[in-house]
Amino acid sequence: MLDTFNKDTQTVHVTLGERSYEILIGRHLLASAGEQIAALMPGARLAIITDENVQKLHLETLRKSLNAAGLKHVEFVVPAGESTKCFAQFERLVDEVLAARLERGDAIVALGGGVVGDLAGYVAASVRRGMSFIQIPTSLLSQVDSSVGGKTGINSRHGKNLIGAFHQPSLVIADTALLDTLSEREFRAGYAEVAKYGLLGDAEFFTWLEENWQGVFNGGPQREEAVARSCQAKADVVAADERESGQRALLNLGHTFGHALESAVAYANERLVHGEGVSIGMMLAHEFSERLGLLSQDDVKRVETHLTAVGLPTRISEIPGQMPPAQTLLDIIAQDKKVSRGQLTFILSRGIGDTFVEKGVDPDAVLEFLTEKLA
Amino acid sequence: MLDTFNKDTQTVHVTLGERSYEILIGRHLLASAGEQIAALMPGARLAIITDENVQKLHLETLRKSLNAAGLKHVEFVVPAGESTKCFAQFERLVDEVLAARLERGDAIVALGGGVVGDLAGYVAASVRRGMSFIQIPTSLLSQVDSSVGGKTGINSRHGKNLIGAFHQPSLVIADTALLDTLSEREFRAGYAEVAKYGLLGDAEFFTWLEENWQGVFNGGPQREEAVARSCQAKADVVAADERESGQRALLNLGHTFGHALESAVAYANERLVHGEGVSIGMMLAHEFSERLGLLSQDDVKRVETHLTAVGLPTRISEIPGQMPPAQTLLDIIAQDKKVSRGQLTFILSRGIGDTFVEKGVDPDAVLEFLTEKLA
Repeated sequence: MLDTFNKDTQTVHVTLGERSYEILIGRHLLASAGEQIAALMPGARLAIITDENVQKLHLETLRKSLNAAGLKHVEFVVPAGESTKCFAQFERLVDEVLAARLERGDAIVALGGGVVGDLAGYVAASVRRGMSFIQIPTSLLSQVDSSVGGKTGINSRHGKNLIGAFHQPSLVIADTALLDTLSEREFRAGYAEVAKYGLLGDAEFFTWLEENWQGVFNGGPQREEAVARSCQAKADVVAADERESGQRALLNLGHTFGHALESAVAYANERLVHGEGVSIGMMLAHEFSERLGLLSQDDVKRVETHLTAVGLPTRISEIPGQMPPAQTLLDIIAQDKKVSRGQLTFILSRGIGDTFVEKGVDPDAVLEFLTEKLA
Repeated sequence: MLDTFNKDTQTVHVTLGERSYEILIGRHLLASAGEQIAALMPGARLAIITDENVQKLHLETLRKSLNAAGLKHVEFVVPAGESTKCFAQFERLVDEVLAARLERGDAIVALGGGVVGDLAGYVAASVRRGMSFIQIPTSLLSQVDSSVGGKTGINSRHGKNLIGAFHQPSLVIADTALLDTLSEREFRAGYAEVAKYGLLGDAEFFTWLEENWQGVFNGGPQREEAVARSCQAKADVVAADERESGQRALLNLGHTFGHALESAVAYANERLVHGEGVSIGMMLAHEFSERLGLLSQDDVKRVETHLTAVGLPTRISEIPGQMPPAQTLLDIIAQDKKVSRGQLTFILSRGIGDTFVEKGVDPDAVLEFLTEKLA
């Protein structure tokens, strides 16, 4: 399923019937975005949604590319940061897109990381009950995770991503050169999701990452390879279970614990960003699996060694500041949308690359485990 | 496809693959709603969304039925009227449903007319990216139209229903005895949509209505028959084109003109309700078709005679108060979401029951026609 597009570009096909689309992965693709979009939807009008940080770095390149391709567009800039995924921004953007008289066949273009992608995707899903949607993810996290699978949405005071829609993009353009502008911390956080694809179902990929991670970080050709393999892994899971009724839940490896930690620090990025929560969450999921007698200590050690090698946190104690008691974390987990009829669902592991969905996890066992980890 | 459920109840199957569902049609079904819902989703928790008017008339019956079936539920009441289909109510309800900790497999129950159904459906589509949804339509309009097809949404200052989602219900319970509580005007307005199904694709049904409309109005067995045939007609169109990419547009017969008229009076129900707009709109669509040489004067006359017989308006001049100039109506039509790339789309007719989608309608011809009709 992995084709070479030209010598520099890889293409991942996401197979979802009439909602199938392609992810283009390569360095400096942003400069030819207009050409790609014009080929896919000639004559379409576009609304670019981006944030204040990405605007400064990359909007001009996209603008030039769209103009060169003769594509008319409007631009909407939102504040950077998770708090932008809110009702007020959603309402404002929906109104702006309608005011610009964009039609169903026109497209919303998300230029940014996961926040911009989730928000813009939900706008695209909602205006006229669904407009076309194009993603140009600018962070490693959004290139390997949020741009595949069609999850869009905003946050609620009750939790993250509790309001939204499934809405597939028509095209994803992942320009790996844009990742050169990320901070080390942000790149590392995105890498947690890359490592996740190895841990959840592909031991060989995890081994490859153990050997090749420096190339991914340094912008060698290993970076495109890692992004493409990650997208392909997610695409395969999503194709099999678009609406998250079964196996798609595997993608939540590390996320049930991770989201609880993010929520516990009130999504304060200076304390914890999403990928760091996922990294600690994956570590906790493997340790909890070992506690349940499912996993060897050697495998747990391997997970810890690799995550630590790339500079990711693996312990709750690495989060600066005070953490709430274990019961509070458990309560947050119980309000998580992955709960079904009061039973706790976790992704557990029997070995590197061998995870499964466990729907009947005993809340008391989780409480005891978390109490220890917080001690 | 039309089964007898028991001696009083008819069932229409809406065939949409894994999103298929049933519409139950009969007198006094509300009292057994709990039983029906419990059979479909045992153990589910429910959030009933209703409006202040319907609350007084029918909520107690539903409450008793749910309690008898052992179904836990919460209740949210919104103000009656079109202005309830707004962002503020949407945000409030989403928040309340999350606060009540309802999960994906739990259900939103819409008890009310089209406003409640559209708003509650959009809430169901959006909370946790999609919860189960049950419709208990209490108006004729919502029983034959908005409860079939999965269109949900709210209004924008730019137009009606411009924000929303496609989200299919799991069950529709159409209790035709509830229609006894409607005003004559409201019943008639709903009847415009019943007549539409005859006009758009079923000449035999239109003839049947010409002969049987009194029974439909008086609550004879013709009422269940008319509701069932209307739902079946819509279900057949929706099954063939769920996302409105082609033939589903036929359901908009009378709606392009009708929506423009509703918008022109700022949705002031004392001047014009939706079904009245559709009635005048259907008349205009047939007259415009005749003007284009597509339709005989005899057929136009037949449409006018029947709509007039049941007491529906057929002329713009029947709308009380001042109407805007033709150019304003045309501008409203051009902002309608059924527009594609600047061309006007209308549903036109070649005869009773023989309509088609015309995508290349000349705006000047529409302007001239409307100018005359407003004179």
